[in-house]
Amino acid sequence: MTRLLAVDWGTSSLRAALIDPDGNVLDERAFPRGILSVAAGEFPAVFAECFGDWMAPGTLCLISGMAGSRQGWREAPYCPCPAGFGDIADRLEWVEPGRIAIVPGLSIEKHGVPDVIRGEETQVFGALQLLGLDNARLVLPGTHSKWVRVAERRVTDFSTWMTGEIYALLRQHSILARMLPENDSQPPDAEAFGQGVAYALHGPGLLHTAFSARTLALFNRIQTDALPSYLSGLVIGEELKSQRLQGGDTVVVMGSEALTERYGQALAQLGVTAQPLGDNATWRGLRAIADSLPGL
Amino acid sequence: MTRLLAVDWGTSSLRAALIDPDGNVLDERAFPRGILSVAAGEFPAVFAECFGDWMAPGTLCLISGMAGSRQGWREAPYCPCPAGFGDIADRLEWVEPGRIAIVPGLSIEKHGVPDVIRGEETQVFGALQLLGLDNARLVLPGTHSKWVRVAERRVTDFSTWMTGEIYALLRQHSILARMLPENDSQPPDAEAFGQGVAYALHGPGLLHTAFSARTLALFNRIQTDALPSYLSGLVIGEELKSQRLQGGDTVVVMGSEALTERYGQALAQLGVTAQPLGDNATWRGLRAIADSLPGL
Repeated sequence: MTRLLAVDWGTSSLRAALIDPDGNVLDERAFPRGILSVAAGEFPAVFAECFGDWMAPGTLCLISGMAGSRQGWREAPYCPCPAGFGDIADRLEWVEPGRIAIVPGLSIEKHGVPDVIRGEETQVFGALQLLGLDNARLVLPGTHSKWVRVAERRVTDFSTWMTGEIYALLRQHSILARMLPENDSQPPDAEAFGQGVAYALHGPGLLHTAFSARTLALFNRIQTDALPSYLSGLVIGEELKSQRLQGGDTVVVMGSEALTERYGQALAQLGVTAQPLGDNATWRGLRAIADSLPGL
Repeated sequence: MTRLLAVDWGTSSLRAALIDPDGNVLDERAFPRGILSVAAGEFPAVFAECFGDWMAPGTLCLISGMAGSRQGWREAPYCPCPAGFGDIADRLEWVEPGRIAIVPGLSIEKHGVPDVIRGEETQVFGALQLLGLDNARLVLPGTHSKWVRVAERRVTDFSTWMTGEIYALLRQHSILARMLPENDSQPPDAEAFGQGVAYALHGPGLLHTAFSARTLALFNRIQTDALPSYLSGLVIGEELKSQRLQGGDTVVVMGSEALTERYGQALAQLGVTAQPLGDNATWRGLRAIADSLPGL
């Protein structure tokens, strides 16, 4: 067990925590230095500038997120599923042997089509630790939602859903955008959201149901202010519809408070229990991977 | 039977044909004067300017398309389905009694949600005439595809699919756009298109399958130039998947040559026969409505 510098280096942000062997967070830092802001070859300098003083001898640094992508510090090839802590640890991409490593993302192939996650695998492993679970079904909602299945502490299946992005496209750029208010209502309209979820769950597909945001407004069946919430319900309902959920299931929901609440409401419409966890499991996940490394 | 001035007055274009009692097109005109370019109150003047010399005594003018919408010349309330020639004729919105009328669109309500078409109903009635059909299933692909069922010469069911628009959103504004070539390949890649259709047909939904355009490129499984065709196959396949088609069915496809060809290929993958008709059935539809008017 060693002192860990846990780094979440994403597309648009860089966050880190210094964690002691018992898992206590000693200090945290955040910088607006996502990988898109770092030129190729400049990663070591940015790292030294941000964390040099934390890298005392005996400190291990693990980095998760897009820093391991082709556009990042060093490409950490995807680890094929099923994969657990041990598989991830075996495939760390060492930037400095024994000192700084990048956590690989996961890949899976179904029907001849690959899918990938990078960063979320660490959150999932952290969630298993935090919740004391060996088997779980999880969703990490967002621009690209990830649904993950864990059996015996290994990720056995996952899939990516462009739910948040397609909502934003419809919200901002489609013919529906013209009828919608410029800003989403605060707070969101839970009734309109639920109406969207319900229609998506029994509707024939988003290509058709999305048009209902237009016709319901055309026939004055819904208030314009409620349309963004209704549209959000349509896309989230469409995502849930495909998950083959059954009443009585439990799903761990890891995301922002607003999204966690929406998914909780939508899951409840299916009789599914949402177990909310927030989006801060990364530190725990990196600590768990560090603890699984032999000889550290 | 009388001389007919048939007008297709859409959002962005204004087309018209002078048609004799036997259905022969005597002359045609087109103007860049879609309803978006005409200020409220200016419709009569634009009409007189474009067609005044054609409106000799005894000439009847029927107008289909968005000229009958709230933003058009005069709102022609939707005619509820099921609806046939006679229902449409009964509900013409007469701008000048016995002389100039606007054809109403159709509305339908399913699961408490309305759907509408305006302009396509006339193309459908024209198609029935041209093909000598009393019963048919038709698709009018485009930005918003319309699927229509006709039984005993009446439209009994229809639905709108935002297929073309969602393709354009993904093509131009999504994360996928960054990986796609700036322009679609000419000619389209039929193999990649078919691959997209096949994946959509057995995939769990577009929110997930759309992401495959990214991962297939990431793993070098598809050429970047072929991605637009693949994505087109994904969205059209998703639309077809929801139509409950069976091998041996026939669908009349009315649209541009390029789209008709794509839908033909996709339908063939389901064992369904496409009966292509082009997109010029409006004149025949308006002639048929005119012929059904009593006393003309």
